[in-house]
Amino acid sequence: MTIYDWHTGPYPARVRIALGELRLQSQVRFVSIDLWKGEHKTPAFLAKNYSGTLPVLELDDGTLIAECTAITQYLDALNGDHLLTGMTPLEQGVIHMMSKRAEIELLDAISVYFHHATPGLGPDVEIYQNAEWGLRQRDKAVRGMRYFDSVLRQRPFIAGHAFSMADIAVIGGLIFAELVGLPVPAECEALRAWYARMQQRPSVRNRITMSPPSKAAT
Amino acid sequence: MTIYDWHTGPYPARVRIALGELRLQSQVRFVSIDLWKGEHKTPAFLAKNYSGTLPVLELDDGTLIAECTAITQYLDALNGDHLLTGMTPLEQGVIHMMSKRAEIELLDAISVYFHHATPGLGPDVEIYQNAEWGLRQRDKAVRGMRYFDSVLRQRPFIAGHAFSMADIAVIGGLIFAELVGLPVPAECEALRAWYARMQQRPSVRNRITMSPPSKAAT
Repeated sequence: MTIYDWHTGPYPARVRIALGELRLQSQVRFVSIDLWKGEHKTPAFLAKNYSGTLPVLELDDGTLIAECTAITQYLDALNGDHLLTGMTPLEQGVIHMMSKRAEIELLDAISVYFHHATPGLGPDVEIYQNAEWGLRQRDKAVRGMRYFDSVLRQRPFIAGHAFSMADIAVIGGLIFAELVGLPVPAECEALRAWYARMQQRPSVRNRITMSPPSKAAT
Repeated sequence: MTIYDWHTGPYPARVRIALGELRLQSQVRFVSIDLWKGEHKTPAFLAKNYSGTLPVLELDDGTLIAECTAITQYLDALNGDHLLTGMTPLEQGVIHMMSKRAEIELLDAISVYFHHATPGLGPDVEIYQNAEWGLRQRDKAVRGMRYFDSVLRQRPFIAGHAFSMADIAVIGGLIFAELVGLPVPAECEALRAWYARMQQRPSVRNRITMSPPSKAAT
Protein backbone atom coordinates (compact mmCIF):
# COMPACT_ATOMS: atom_id res chain seq x y z
CA MET A 1 0.00 0.00 0.00
CA THR A 2 1.10 3.57 -0.69
CA ILE A 3 0.02 6.60 1.35
CA TYR A 4 0.34 9.99 -0.29
CA ASP A 5 0.55 12.51 2.52
CA TRP A 6 2.60 15.22 4.22
CA HIS A 7 4.27 14.29 7.48
CA THR A 8 3.03 17.23 9.57
CA GLY A 9 -0.46 17.60 8.08
CA PRO A 10 -3.44 17.32 10.47
CA TYR A 11 -5.53 15.17 8.13
CA PRO A 12 -2.56 12.90 7.29
CA ALA A 13 -2.06 12.57 11.06
CA ARG A 14 -5.44 10.85 11.31
CA VAL A 15 -4.43 8.02 9.00
CA ARG A 16 -0.93 7.79 10.49
CA ILE A 17 -2.48 7.40 13.95
CA ALA A 18 -4.88 4.76 12.61
CA LEU A 19 -1.96 2.87 11.05
CA GLY A 20 -0.11 3.00 14.38
CA GLU A 21 -3.11 1.77 16.35
CA LEU A 22 -3.60 -1.10 13.89
CA ARG A 23 0.18 -1.81 13.72
CA LEU A 24 0.04 -1.63 9.93
CA GLN A 25 2.71 1.02 9.36
CA SER A 26 5.29 -1.49 8.13
CA GLN A 27 2.98 -2.42 5.28
CA VAL A 28 2.86 1.12 3.94
CA ARG A 29 5.13 3.10 1.66
CA PHE A 30 4.82 6.85 2.21
CA VAL A 31 5.10 9.33 -0.64
CA SER A 32 5.38 13.00 0.32
CA ILE A 33 3.10 15.52 -1.35
CA ASP A 34 4.43 18.92 -0.27
CA LEU A 35 1.44 20.97 0.85
CA TRP A 36 3.55 24.13 1.07
CA LYS A 37 4.41 23.83 -2.61
CA GLY A 38 0.79 23.12 -3.51
CA GLU A 39 1.64 19.67 -4.85
CA HIS A 40 -1.86 18.52 -3.80
CA LYS A 41 -3.39 20.89 -6.37
CA THR A 42 -1.42 19.71 -9.43
CA PRO A 43 -3.24 17.87 -12.24
CA ALA A 44 -1.23 14.71 -11.47
CA PHE A 45 -2.44 14.67 -7.88
CA LEU A 46 -6.00 15.75 -8.71
CA ALA A 47 -6.19 12.66 -10.92
CA LYS A 48 -5.63 10.63 -7.74
CA ASN A 49 -8.08 12.64 -5.61
CA TYR A 50 -10.60 14.92 -7.29
CA SER A 51 -10.97 16.92 -4.06
CA GLY A 52 -7.25 17.73 -3.96
CA THR A 53 -6.76 16.78 -0.32
CA LEU A 54 -4.37 14.58 1.62
CA PRO A 55 -4.04 11.77 2.52
CA VAL A 56 -4.77 9.26 -0.24
CA LEU A 57 -4.27 5.51 0.01
CA GLU A 58 -3.28 3.65 -3.15
CA LEU A 59 -3.65 -0.11 -3.10
CA ASP A 60 -1.30 -2.40 -4.99
CA ASP A 61 -3.97 -2.93 -7.68
CA GLY A 62 -4.11 0.83 -8.26
CA THR A 63 -7.38 1.47 -6.38
CA LEU A 64 -7.36 4.91 -4.80
CA ILE A 65 -9.09 5.64 -1.50
CA ALA A 66 -9.27 9.25 -0.32
CA GLU A 67 -10.93 10.73 2.79
CA CYS A 68 -9.66 9.86 6.26
CA THR A 69 -12.86 8.15 7.36
CA ALA A 70 -12.91 5.94 4.27
CA ILE A 71 -9.22 5.05 4.58
CA THR A 72 -9.66 4.26 8.27
CA GLN A 73 -12.73 2.15 7.52
CA TYR A 74 -10.72 0.20 4.95
CA LEU A 75 -7.70 -0.33 7.21
CA ASP A 76 -9.86 -1.28 10.17
CA ALA A 77 -11.83 -3.80 8.12
CA LEU A 78 -8.55 -5.34 6.91
CA ASN A 79 -7.69 -6.00 10.51
CA GLY A 80 -11.04 -7.61 11.24
CA ASP A 81 -11.21 -6.67 14.91
CA HIS A 82 -12.90 -3.33 14.18
CA LEU A 83 -10.74 -1.65 16.81
CA LEU A 84 -11.38 1.83 15.43
CA THR A 85 -14.79 1.77 13.72
CA GLY A 86 -16.85 -0.43 16.04
CA MET A 87 -18.16 -3.97 16.05
CA THR A 88 -21.88 -3.61 16.79
CA PRO A 89 -24.34 -1.52 14.77
CA LEU A 90 -24.63 0.86 17.72
CA GLU A 91 -20.86 1.30 18.06
CA GLN A 92 -20.51 1.84 14.31
CA GLY A 93 -23.28 4.43 14.24
CA VAL A 94 -22.01 6.44 17.19
CA ILE A 95 -18.37 6.33 16.05
CA HIS A 96 -19.29 7.51 12.56
CA MET A 97 -21.51 10.26 13.99
CA MET A 98 -18.84 11.57 16.33
CA SER A 99 -16.14 11.37 13.65
CA LYS A 100 -18.26 13.43 11.28
CA ARG A 101 -19.13 15.86 14.05
CA ALA A 102 -15.42 16.29 14.82
CA GLU A 103 -14.89 17.20 11.18
CA ILE A 104 -17.81 19.60 10.92
CA GLU A 105 -17.44 21.33 14.25
CA LEU A 106 -13.67 21.33 14.72
CA LEU A 107 -11.25 20.02 12.11
CA ASP A 108 -12.86 21.30 8.91
CA ALA A 109 -13.75 24.58 10.62
CA ILE A 110 -10.10 25.14 11.58
CA SER A 111 -9.06 24.19 8.05
CA VAL A 112 -11.33 26.85 6.57
CA TYR A 113 -10.02 29.40 9.09
CA PHE A 114 -6.43 28.52 8.15
CA HIS A 115 -6.99 28.69 4.39
CA HIS A 116 -9.24 31.76 4.41
CA ALA A 117 -8.40 34.01 7.35
CA THR A 118 -4.66 33.46 7.75
CA PRO A 119 -1.90 33.38 5.09
CA GLY A 120 -2.57 29.64 4.92
CA LEU A 121 -0.21 27.86 2.55
CA GLY A 122 0.86 31.16 1.01
CA PRO A 123 -0.32 33.28 -1.91
CA ASP A 124 0.65 30.79 -4.60
CA VAL A 125 -1.65 28.13 -3.14
CA GLU A 126 -4.42 30.24 -1.55
CA ILE A 127 -5.73 31.76 -4.76
CA TYR A 128 -9.09 32.66 -3.25
CA GLN A 129 -9.75 33.66 0.34
CA ASN A 130 -12.92 34.70 2.17
CA ALA A 131 -11.69 36.10 5.47
CA GLU A 132 -15.14 36.78 6.92
CA TRP A 133 -16.13 33.16 6.40
CA GLY A 134 -12.81 31.98 7.78
CA LEU A 135 -13.19 33.98 10.99
CA ARG A 136 -16.68 32.62 11.55
CA GLN A 137 -15.33 29.11 11.16
CA ARG A 138 -12.63 29.90 13.74
CA ASP A 139 -15.36 30.88 16.22
CA LYS A 140 -17.30 27.72 15.34
CA ALA A 141 -14.20 25.64 16.10
CA VAL A 142 -13.83 27.22 19.54
CA ARG A 143 -17.49 26.42 20.23
CA GLY A 144 -16.69 22.91 19.01
CA MET A 145 -13.92 22.62 21.60
CA ARG A 146 -16.45 23.50 24.31
CA TYR A 147 -18.85 20.92 22.94
CA PHE A 148 -16.24 18.13 22.94
CA ASP A 149 -15.23 19.19 26.43
CA SER A 150 -18.84 18.64 27.51
CA VAL A 151 -18.79 15.20 25.88
CA LEU A 152 -15.59 14.24 27.70
CA ARG A 153 -17.07 15.28 31.03
CA GLN A 154 -19.53 12.41 30.54
CA ARG A 155 -17.31 9.64 29.17
CA PRO A 156 -13.61 8.79 28.77
CA PHE A 157 -13.50 8.77 24.96
CA ILE A 158 -15.26 10.76 22.25
CA ALA A 159 -17.61 7.95 21.21
CA GLY A 160 -17.95 6.13 24.53
CA HIS A 161 -15.86 3.77 26.58
CA ALA A 162 -13.16 2.88 24.05
CA PHE A 163 -10.67 4.69 21.85
CA SER A 164 -11.95 4.96 18.27
CA MET A 165 -11.76 6.75 14.95
CA ALA A 166 -13.75 9.56 16.58
CA ASP A 167 -10.95 10.26 19.05
CA ILE A 168 -8.53 10.35 16.13
CA ALA A 169 -10.68 12.94 14.37
CA VAL A 170 -10.72 15.21 17.42
CA ILE A 171 -6.95 14.71 17.86
CA GLY A 172 -6.58 15.84 14.24
CA GLY A 173 -8.59 18.93 15.10
CA LEU A 174 -6.42 19.80 18.08
CA ILE A 175 -3.23 19.19 16.06
CA PHE A 176 -4.55 21.70 13.52
CA ALA A 177 -5.52 24.10 16.33
CA GLU A 178 -1.94 24.04 17.60
CA LEU A 179 -0.56 24.67 14.11
CA VAL A 180 -2.73 27.77 13.66
CA GLY A 181 -2.24 29.01 17.23
CA LEU A 182 -5.83 28.54 18.35
CA PRO A 183 -5.68 27.56 22.03
CA VAL A 184 -8.13 25.24 23.75
CA PRO A 185 -9.97 27.44 26.30
CA ALA A 186 -8.52 26.99 29.78
CA GLU A 187 -11.89 26.02 31.23
CA CYS A 188 -12.14 23.03 28.85
CA GLU A 189 -10.47 20.89 31.49
CA ALA A 190 -11.87 17.55 30.36
CA LEU A 191 -10.80 18.14 26.75
CA ARG A 192 -7.31 19.24 27.85
CA ALA A 193 -6.88 16.24 30.14
CA TRP A 194 -8.09 13.86 27.42
CA TYR A 195 -5.70 15.42 24.89
CA ALA A 196 -2.79 15.02 27.31
CA ARG A 197 -3.73 11.34 27.69
CA MET A 198 -4.01 10.92 23.92
CA GLN A 199 -0.50 12.27 23.44
CA GLN A 200 0.83 9.41 25.53
CA ARG A 201 -0.36 6.90 22.95
CA PRO A 202 2.55 5.67 20.78
CA SER A 203 0.41 6.08 17.66
CA VAL A 204 -0.01 9.78 18.37
CA ARG A 205 3.51 10.39 19.69
CA ASN A 206 5.27 8.70 16.76
CA ARG A 207 3.08 9.82 13.91
CA ILE A 208 5.48 12.32 12.33
CA THR A 209 8.55 10.12 12.54
CA MET A 210 6.55 7.21 11.09
CA SER A 211 7.87 8.50 7.78
CA PRO A 212 10.04 11.56 7.27
CA PRO A 213 9.42 13.69 4.19
CA SER A 214 10.68 12.10 1.00
CA LYS A 215 10.97 13.00 -2.63
CA ALA A 216 7.60 12.58 -4.31
CA ALA A 217 7.64 9.66 -6.70
CA THR A 218 5.21 11.19 -9.17
CA MET B 1 -36.87 3.75 16.38
CA THR B 2 -37.77 7.39 15.85
CA ILE B 3 -36.54 9.53 12.95
CA TYR B 4 -36.67 13.29 13.37
CA ASP B 5 -36.79 14.75 9.90
CA TRP B 6 -38.72 16.83 7.37
CA HIS B 7 -40.45 14.97 4.59
CA THR B 8 -39.08 17.00 1.66
CA GLY B 9 -35.55 17.66 2.99
CA PRO B 10 -32.61 16.46 0.84
CA TYR B 11 -30.63 15.09 3.78
CA PRO B 12 -33.69 13.39 5.29
CA ALA B 13 -34.24 11.86 1.84
CA ARG B 14 -30.95 9.99 2.20
CA VAL B 15 -32.09 8.13 5.30
CA ARG B 16 -35.61 7.59 3.93
CA ILE B 17 -34.12 6.00 0.80
CA ALA B 18 -31.84 3.83 2.96
CA LEU B 19 -34.85 2.72 5.02
CA GLY B 20 -36.72 1.83 1.83
CA GLU B 21 -33.79 -0.12 0.39
CA LEU B 22 -33.43 -2.04 3.65
CA ARG B 23 -37.24 -2.46 4.03
CA LEU B 24 -37.08 -1.04 7.54
CA GLN B 25 -39.59 1.78 7.18
CA SER B 26 -42.29 -0.03 9.15
CA GLN B 27 -39.98 -0.11 12.17
CA VAL B 28 -39.68 3.66 12.28
CA ARG B 29 -41.84 6.39 13.77
CA PHE B 30 -41.33 9.74 12.01
CA VAL B 31 -41.47 13.03 13.89
CA SER B 32 -41.57 16.19 11.78
CA ILE B 33 -39.14 18.99 12.53
CA ASP B 34 -40.29 21.91 10.40
CA LEU B 35 -37.22 23.33 8.68
CA TRP B 36 -39.16 26.35 7.41
CA LYS B 37 -40.00 27.31 10.99
CA GLY B 38 -36.41 26.74 12.10
CA GLU B 39 -37.43 23.98 14.49
CA HIS B 40 -34.01 22.37 13.91
CA LYS B 41 -32.34 25.37 15.57
CA THR B 42 -34.33 25.36 18.83
CA PRO B 43 -32.59 24.47 22.11
CA ALA B 44 -34.76 21.33 22.39
CA PHE B 45 -33.58 20.05 19.03
CA LEU B 46 -29.97 21.15 19.51
CA ALA B 47 -29.93 18.96 22.61
CA LYS B 48 -30.63 16.03 20.25
CA ASN B 49 -28.09 17.09 17.62
CA TYR B 50 -25.44 19.67 18.47
CA SER B 51 -25.00 20.46 14.77
CA GLY B 52 -28.66 21.40 14.36
CA THR B 53 -29.24 19.33 11.24
CA LEU B 54 -31.75 16.74 10.12
CA PRO B 55 -32.24 13.82 10.19
CA VAL B 56 -31.61 12.32 13.63
CA LEU B 57 -32.31 8.72 14.61
CA GLU B 58 -33.36 8.07 18.20
CA LEU B 59 -33.18 4.47 19.38
CA ASP B 60 -35.62 3.07 21.89
CA ASP B 61 -32.98 3.30 24.63
CA GLY B 62 -32.63 7.03 23.96
CA THR B 63 -29.36 6.85 22.00
CA LEU B 64 -29.21 9.58 19.38
CA ILE B 65 -27.46 9.10 16.04
CA ALA B 66 -27.10 12.10 13.74
CA GLU B 67 -25.41 12.39 10.33
CA CYS B 68 -26.75 10.50 7.33
CA THR B 69 -23.66 8.36 6.87
CA ALA B 70 -23.69 7.29 10.52
CA ILE B 71 -27.43 6.53 10.50
CA THR B 72 -27.05 4.55 7.27
CA GLN B 73 -24.10 2.65 8.69
CA TYR B 74 -26.18 1.75 11.76
CA LEU B 75 -29.25 0.67 9.77
CA ASP B 76 -27.17 -1.31 7.29
CA ALA B 77 -25.30 -3.12 10.07
CA LEU B 78 -28.66 -4.02 11.69
CA ASN B 79 -29.57 -5.78 8.49
CA GLY B 80 -26.31 -7.71 8.37
CA ASP B 81 -26.13 -8.05 4.58
CA HIS B 82 -24.28 -4.73 4.20
CA LEU B 83 -26.36 -3.89 1.15
CA LEU B 84 -25.52 -0.19 1.32
CA THR B 85 -22.10 0.13 2.98
CA GLY B 86 -20.20 -2.80 1.53
CA MET B 87 -19.06 -6.21 2.69
CA THR B 88 -15.33 -6.31 1.91
CA PRO B 89 -12.75 -3.78 3.15
CA LEU B 90 -12.37 -2.52 -0.42
CA GLU B 91 -16.11 -2.04 -0.91
CA GLN B 92 -16.40 -0.27 2.45
CA GLY B 93 -13.50 2.04 1.70
CA VAL B 94 -14.69 3.03 -1.77
CA ILE B 95 -18.31 3.49 -0.68
CA HIS B 96 -17.30 5.71 2.23
CA MET B 97 -14.97 7.72 0.01
CA MET B 98 -17.58 8.32 -2.66
CA SER B 99 -20.27 9.15 -0.10
CA LYS B 100 -18.02 11.75 1.49
CA ARG B 101 -17.06 13.10 -1.93
CA ALA B 102 -20.74 13.43 -2.82
CA GLU B 103 -21.20 15.52 0.31
CA ILE B 104 -18.15 17.73 -0.20
CA GLU B 105 -18.45 18.28 -3.92
CA LEU B 106 -22.22 18.31 -4.40
CA LEU B 107 -24.69 18.06 -1.53
CA ASP B 108 -22.98 20.24 1.09
CA ALA B 109 -21.94 22.73 -1.60
CA ILE B 110 -25.56 23.13 -2.71
CA SER B 111 -26.63 23.45 0.91
CA VAL B 112 -24.20 26.33 1.47
CA TYR B 113 -25.40 27.96 -1.76
CA PHE B 114 -29.03 27.64 -0.62
CA HIS B 115 -28.42 28.99 2.88
CA HIS B 116 -26.00 31.77 1.88
CA ALA B 117 -26.76 32.98 -1.65
CA THR B 118 -30.54 32.51 -1.87
CA PRO B 119 -33.27 33.46 0.64
CA GLY B 120 -32.80 29.95 2.02
CA LEU B 121 -35.22 29.18 4.84
CA GLY B 122 -36.11 32.85 5.20
CA PRO B 123 -34.78 35.75 7.26
CA ASP B 124 -35.84 34.34 10.62
CA VAL B 125 -33.70 31.22 10.13
CA GLU B 126 -30.85 32.55 7.96
CA ILE B 127 -29.45 34.96 10.52
CA TYR B 128 -26.04 35.15 8.80
CA GLN B 129 -25.37 34.87 5.10
CA ASN B 130 -22.16 35.09 3.06
CA ALA B 131 -23.37 35.40 -0.53
CA GLU B 132 -19.89 35.38 -2.10
CA TRP B 133 -19.09 32.08 -0.41
CA GLY B 134 -22.49 30.69 -1.35
CA LEU B 135 -22.01 31.50 -5.04
CA ARG B 136 -18.60 29.85 -5.08
CA GLN B 137 -20.14 26.75 -3.57
CA ARG B 138 -22.80 26.77 -6.30
CA ASP B 139 -20.06 26.75 -8.93
CA LYS B 140 -18.28 23.97 -7.05
CA ALA B 141 -21.49 21.91 -7.12
CA VAL B 142 -21.81 22.28 -10.89
CA ARG B 143 -18.20 21.11 -11.24
CA GLY B 144 -19.16 18.25 -8.94
CA MET B 145 -21.97 17.27 -11.32
CA ARG B 146 -19.43 17.07 -14.14
CA TYR B 147 -17.15 14.96 -11.98
CA PHE B 148 -19.89 12.47 -11.08
CA ASP B 149 -20.88 12.37 -14.74
CA SER B 150 -17.32 11.32 -15.54
CA VAL B 151 -17.52 8.60 -12.88
CA LEU B 152 -20.79 7.26 -14.31
CA ARG B 153 -19.29 7.08 -17.79
CA GLN B 154 -16.96 4.40 -16.36
CA ARG B 155 -19.32 2.34 -14.18
CA PRO B 156 -23.04 1.87 -13.55
CA PHE B 157 -23.13 3.11 -9.95
CA ILE B 158 -21.25 5.79 -8.03
CA ALA B 159 -19.04 3.36 -6.10
CA GLY B 160 -18.83 0.55 -8.65
CA HIS B 161 -21.05 -2.26 -9.82
CA ALA B 162 -23.77 -2.13 -7.16
CA PHE B 163 -26.15 0.42 -5.70
CA SER B 164 -24.81 1.80 -2.40
CA MET B 165 -24.88 4.59 0.16
CA ALA B 166 -22.76 6.60 -2.28
CA ASP B 167 -25.55 6.58 -4.88
CA ILE B 168 -27.93 7.76 -2.18
CA ALA B 169 -25.64 10.68 -1.33
CA VAL B 170 -25.51 11.82 -4.96
CA ILE B 171 -29.30 11.38 -5.24
CA GLY B 172 -29.59 13.67 -2.20
CA GLY B 173 -27.42 16.19 -4.01
CA LEU B 174 -29.58 16.15 -7.13
CA ILE B 175 -32.77 16.40 -5.05
CA PHE B 176 -31.30 19.53 -3.46
CA ALA B 177 -30.23 20.83 -6.89
CA GLU B 178 -33.82 20.52 -8.11
CA LEU B 179 -35.13 22.34 -5.04
CA VAL B 180 -32.80 25.30 -5.61
CA GLY B 181 -33.28 25.33 -9.39
CA LEU B 182 -29.71 24.32 -10.25
CA PRO B 183 -29.95 22.20 -13.41
CA VAL B 184 -27.63 19.33 -14.26
CA PRO B 185 -25.70 20.47 -17.37
CA ALA B 186 -27.21 18.96 -20.52
CA GLU B 187 -23.91 17.40 -21.53
CA CYS B 188 -23.80 15.36 -18.31
CA GLU B 189 -25.60 12.56 -20.10
CA ALA B 190 -24.36 9.71 -17.95
CA LEU B 191 -25.37 11.51 -14.74
CA ARG B 192 -28.80 12.36 -16.15
CA ALA B 193 -29.42 8.80 -17.35
CA TRP B 194 -28.31 7.38 -14.00
CA TYR B 195 -30.60 9.81 -12.12
CA ALA B 196 -33.53 8.79 -14.30
CA ARG B 197 -32.79 5.15 -13.44
CA MET B 198 -32.50 5.98 -9.75
CA GLN B 199 -35.92 7.59 -9.76
CA GLN B 200 -37.42 4.28 -10.82
CA ARG B 201 -36.34 2.69 -7.55
CA PRO B 202 -39.29 2.39 -5.13
CA SER B 203 -37.11 3.68 -2.29
CA VAL B 204 -36.50 6.91 -4.18
CA ARG B 205 -40.00 7.25 -5.65
CA ASN B 206 -41.82 6.71 -2.37
CA ARG B 207 -39.54 8.59 -0.02
CA ILE B 208 -41.80 11.60 0.64
CA THR B 209 -44.98 9.60 1.13
CA MET B 210 -43.12 7.24 3.50
CA SER B 211 -44.35 9.62 6.17
CA PRO B 212 -46.35 12.79 5.61
CA PRO B 213 -45.59 15.79 7.82
CA SER B 214 -46.90 15.39 11.34
CA LYS B 215 -47.08 17.44 14.48
CA ALA B 216 -43.72 17.38 16.23
CA ALA B 217 -43.93 15.43 19.47
CA THR B 218 -41.43 17.60 21.27
